[in-house]
Amino acid sequence: MTENETVWSKPEKEIARKAYRAAYHRECSDILMTVRKMASEAEDPAGLWKIHDFLREKRRESDEKYDYRYSVLRWVFARLMYEGWLKPEDLEGISEEKLLGIRQFAEFYARS
Amino acid sequence: MTENETVWSKPEKEIARKAYRAAYHRECSDILMTVRKMASEAEDPAGLWKIHDFLREKRRESDEKYDYRYSVLRWVFARLMYEGWLKPEDLEGISEEKLLGIRQFAEFYARS
Repeated sequence: MTENETVWSKPEKEIARKAYRAAYHRECSDILMTVRKMASEAEDPAGLWKIHDFLREKRRESDEKYDYRYSVLRWVFARLMYEGWLKPEDLEGISEEKLLGIRQFAEFYARS
Repeated sequence: MTENETVWSKPEKEIARKAYRAAYHRECSDILMTVRKMASEAEDPAGLWKIHDFLREKRRESDEKYDYRYSVLRWVFARLMYEGWLKPEDLEGISEEKLLGIRQFAEFYARS
């Protein structure tokens, strides 16, 4: 690991913060659309509690996944990219070395 | 406490089961309507997680409240009646002594 991979410059941090926020909003928006669909289709208590279980699971997943420590951010971005919440253009301006690491980690997710 | 208050006859058990189910369905239906409203009005992640928190609280409340043991059923019915989920006509056919107990317990909820 080179220094460029672990140290985020000030402009990189700004890009990272925006990218992270965009991914989080996209994923939450997707969860919300699913909740709306489930709520409009639910017909009984079982249907209601399915929404509860779905949201509980998404909350757990989201609490685990969205971790903004710079020491783990490349892994976080890789996962968000693999899952489709982060787009390559969100990271424009980040050093090539970091992008390479993120892409490699994303491939790791794709294979695992 | 007299025997009539604690022992539920077979026909009373049938009425109780239906009343309990009706109250549960009414309350779940009300929760579902609130979820639909919250989901349609939510605009950001905070709005999404409010639905999560609301459902988690309602689930906790519901797990605690809906307890079909005959030893506690008069208290359960009293609470459901006080909260409006159970209607007096749901309990038609239950012994007068039990109804009296349920009404007294409901007044206890109203005062507490």
